[in-house]
Amino acid sequence: MKVQSLRIVISSARKFINMGALTHLWNLVKNFHAVDISSLMDHLTSREKLILFNTLYENGKEKSAEVLSELDAEDAAHMLQELQIDQISDLFQMIPSDDAAPILQLLPDDLKESVLSAMEEKPSEDVIELLHYEEETAGRIMSPDFYALNENTNVSDTITAMQLEGHVESAFYLYVIDNQDHLVGVVSLRQILFARPNTPLKDIMTKDVISVHTETDQEEVARNVADYNLVAIPVVDSEHKLVGVVTVDDVIDVIDKEATEDIYKMLSLDTSDRVQDSPFTSIKKRLPFLLLSLLTASLAPLVVNHFKGTIEQVVTLAVFMPLVAALGGIAGNQTIAIIVREIAIGQTEWISARKALLKEILVGFGNGIILGSILAVISYLLIKNPYLGLVLGTAIIINLFIAALLGTLIPLFLKLIRLDPALGSVNLLTMCTDSIGFLSFLGLGTLFLRHLS
Amino acid sequence: MKVQSLRIVISSARKFINMGALTHLWNLVKNFHAVDISSLMDHLTSREKLILFNTLYENGKEKSAEVLSELDAEDAAHMLQELQIDQISDLFQMIPSDDAAPILQLLPDDLKESVLSAMEEKPSEDVIELLHYEEETAGRIMSPDFYALNENTNVSDTITAMQLEGHVESAFYLYVIDNQDHLVGVVSLRQILFARPNTPLKDIMTKDVISVHTETDQEEVARNVADYNLVAIPVVDSEHKLVGVVTVDDVIDVIDKEATEDIYKMLSLDTSDRVQDSPFTSIKKRLPFLLLSLLTASLAPLVVNHFKGTIEQVVTLAVFMPLVAALGGIAGNQTIAIIVREIAIGQTEWISARKALLKEILVGFGNGIILGSILAVISYLLIKNPYLGLVLGTAIIINLFIAALLGTLIPLFLKLIRLDPALGSVNLLTMCTDSIGFLSFLGLGTLFLRHLS
Repeated sequence: MKVQSLRIVISSARKFINMGALTHLWNLVKNFHAVDISSLMDHLTSREKLILFNTLYENGKEKSAEVLSELDAEDAAHMLQELQIDQISDLFQMIPSDDAAPILQLLPDDLKESVLSAMEEKPSEDVIELLHYEEETAGRIMSPDFYALNENTNVSDTITAMQLEGHVESAFYLYVIDNQDHLVGVVSLRQILFARPNTPLKDIMTKDVISVHTETDQEEVARNVADYNLVAIPVVDSEHKLVGVVTVDDVIDVIDKEATEDIYKMLSLDTSDRVQDSPFTSIKKRLPFLLLSLLTASLAPLVVNHFKGTIEQVVTLAVFMPLVAALGGIAGNQTIAIIVREIAIGQTEWISARKALLKEILVGFGNGIILGSILAVISYLLIKNPYLGLVLGTAIIINLFIAALLGTLIPLFLKLIRLDPALGSVNLLTMCTDSIGFLSFLGLGTLFLRHLS
Repeated sequence: MKVQSLRIVISSARKFINMGALTHLWNLVKNFHAVDISSLMDHLTSREKLILFNTLYENGKEKSAEVLSELDAEDAAHMLQELQIDQISDLFQMIPSDDAAPILQLLPDDLKESVLSAMEEKPSEDVIELLHYEEETAGRIMSPDFYALNENTNVSDTITAMQLEGHVESAFYLYVIDNQDHLVGVVSLRQILFARPNTPLKDIMTKDVISVHTETDQEEVARNVADYNLVAIPVVDSEHKLVGVVTVDDVIDVIDKEATEDIYKMLSLDTSDRVQDSPFTSIKKRLPFLLLSLLTASLAPLVVNHFKGTIEQVVTLAVFMPLVAALGGIAGNQTIAIIVREIAIGQTEWISARKALLKEILVGFGNGIILGSILAVISYLLIKNPYLGLVLGTAIIINLFIAALLGTLIPLFLKLIRLDPALGSVNLLTMCTDSIGFLSFLGLGTLFLRHLS
C-alpha cells in the first residue's frame, strides 16, 4: 500500500473504531490483502487492534486467520489473550501450524493448555510436534503439510491423491518417498502436468534432492534455498524420513532477520529492539550494552592516564588524539563489515581465513602508510615540528595495521568460540584501536618528548 | 558442500588441472550441482578457472551453461573474454536472458556486438531488451520467459500450449491476459491440475494480481515478494501489458545485496568491496572513504585545539575525553542501526518518523542520565572532585541526547535528499558526537575551571 493511502486508511479506521461504526470498518478493510491489514494494525493502539480484529473475525473468519498469520508472534500472542479460548483454538486451526507454534509458545502456560485441548487432534498434534524442535532450527520453521507419495504411484493417482489432500500451504513440489518413507525424489507440479497418466513417479522424479535435517540451523536452511534457487526445501529426520518442508517465504524472513541481526550485533543492540518499542523498553534493552561499553571504553582512559605527564608538557598531543582514534576505528569497521558479511553469506570458510587475514593486513598497512604520510605532512605544515609529524604518522600506520589485524581476528575468533561473529565486534574493536592508538601515539610522543616541547 | 569436502575437491581439481588430467577433472565434477562448481571456481586462479570451464563446455555444454549462470557477472565476463565468439554466443543462448544481460553488459563493446550478432534472433532480442531498462529496476532483473495465455483459453488447451512452449525458468504460475494483452489474472499450476479440462482460465484465475512496473526499484520489488509471500511477481509496462516475471531466487539475491549494502554504506565501504579482491584493489576502494573520514574526523581536533589552555591546567580532562567520545558514538550507532534497518524493511515511513524521533530522544536522554550519573559517581570516587563528576556526567547526558537526535535525523535526512539512508551515516554521526561531546565536556570544564584545577 502506498504511504499516502495508508495514512488515509489509518485515520478512517481509527474514526470508525472510535465511533463504533463497525460495519463501515469492515467495508473499509474487507478487500484488503491480509498483509496490508497487518500493516494497518501496526499503527493502532492495543484496544483499536482488538476491535478491528474482532470485527474481522465476526464478519469473515478466514480473513482474520490470514491476518493473524501475518502478525508478529509477540503482537499476536498479546492480542489473543483478550479473546475467548474457543475463538483462539478456532483461529489456530485455520492458520498453518508453523505460524501457530511460535504464537502459542508465547501464551501463558494455562491458556496454552486450554487452547491445545480445545483444538482438534490433528492440528493440535502438529503444533505440539513443531514446539519439540529447538528454536532457530529447520524443525521449528518447517510446515508439516506437504504432498508426499510413494515412488510407485502413477501420475493419474497422484493427481487424485493431491485433490483429496486439499489445501497445502504454497505447494510447488511433490515429494517422492519409498516404502520405508525415506525421501527419494522430487517432482514439480509442471512435470506432473506434462506426464502421461500411467507413468510412475519414480520415472519422472529428480533423484538428487537437496534436503536439510530437522536440527539444521535456520540460517543454513536459508543459505541452501538461496544458493540452489529453490522455492521449498524438504526437511528429513535422522532416518532420512520426510517430516516437513520449509518454504521460501519463511526463508526470506530468516534472511531479513539474519541481516538485521548482523547489523544489530555489530553495533551492540538487542536483536529484538524495534522502533515501535516504548522508550522504556528500549532503554532497558540498550542499557546492558551501554554498561558493557562503559567497561570496554574505560581501557582508553587508563592508557591516557599513564601519559598525563607527557600531555601536560605537549598539549598538542591531546588535540590530535581524537584523530588517531577515529581513523583506527573507521578502518577497523571497514574490515569488520567485510568479514562479518562474507561469513554470513558463507563465502569465508576457514579454508580462506588465512588468505583474508593476510589481505586485510596488507590493505591496513597500505592505507596506513598513505594516511599516515598525509597527516605527517599536514601536521608538520600546521605545527612546524617534524617530530610531531613523525609521531602522528607512525601512530596512524600502527593503528591502521592493528585495526586490520583485529578487524579480521575478532569476528573469526567469535565464530571459533561459537558466538555470533558480529556480536559486539565494533565495540571490541573500538576498545582496541582506541587503546593501542593512544598507546602508540602517546608512547612515541613520550619517546620524542624533548623534540616536541 | 561441506567445508571439509570442498577442501579436498579444490586440491584434487587443482592437481588434475596442473597435470592436464582433464578426463579425471570432468569425472570429479560432472555430478556436482552447478552452484557447487561455481563455489569451487571461487578458489581457483583465472587460468585454472578457464581450464575447468573449457573442460565443462567440451564434455557437457549444458553443465557449463548452468555454471555460467551461477557465476558473478564480473567473474563471468572476465572469463568469457578468453573464449571464442561462437562459444560465447552459444552459451548465452543456453542461459536465461536475465542472467545473460548483466554479463553481456560488462564485455567490451566490439565483443558485445559480435556476440549479439552471432546469437539467434529471439534470445539476442530478449537480452538487448533487458539492457534497455535502468539498472536496479524490475525491468533489468525480470525474466522475459513466462507462461501467459488468454483468459478465454480452457484448461486442456492451456496444458497443450504450455507443453509446446517448452522450458520456462522456474514457472510456478500461469498469467492470464485479456485480448489487449493486459494482465488480468493469475492461475497456479495446482489450480490447473485440479480443474476440469473445459473450464476457461477466467473462471479459475485469481483476479487481484500483485504486479510491479518495469521501472519499479528492485528493492521495492523484493519487498513486495517478501511481504505478500510470493514465489514470482509479474512485471507490466506503462499500459499494464505483461512483459516479464521476477522470480523469488532473484529477489533473495536483491535482499542479500541490499542488507550487505546497508552495512557497507553505514560503515563507509564501497559496496563492491570483497574478501576476494586483491589488496591493491581494496586499498583503492577504501581510500576515498578514509580520506573523507580524515576530513570529518578533523572537526574534533579543531574543537579540542580551542580548549588547549583548559587541558593544560587540568590534564585529567584529556584522560576522560575518549570516554565521552566512545559512549556518544556507541549510543548513536545503536540509534542509526535501528533507523536504517527499519527504513530498509519498510517499517519507518514518514508517517512515523516524528514518533521515532521523539522515542529515540527519550531513550537517549534516559540512558544519558543513567550512564552520566554512574560516571559522575565513579569519577568522583577516583578523583575526589565533585565538579569533575558534574562536568563529566553532564557532558555524557548532552552527548547521548545529541547521539539520539542525530542518529535519527542523519538517516532520515539522507533519505529526504534521496541518498541512501545508510550512506556514511556512522562516520557522520561520529564526527558530530566527537565534536559536540568534546565541546560540551571541555566547555563545561572551562566554565568550572577554578573548581577543577
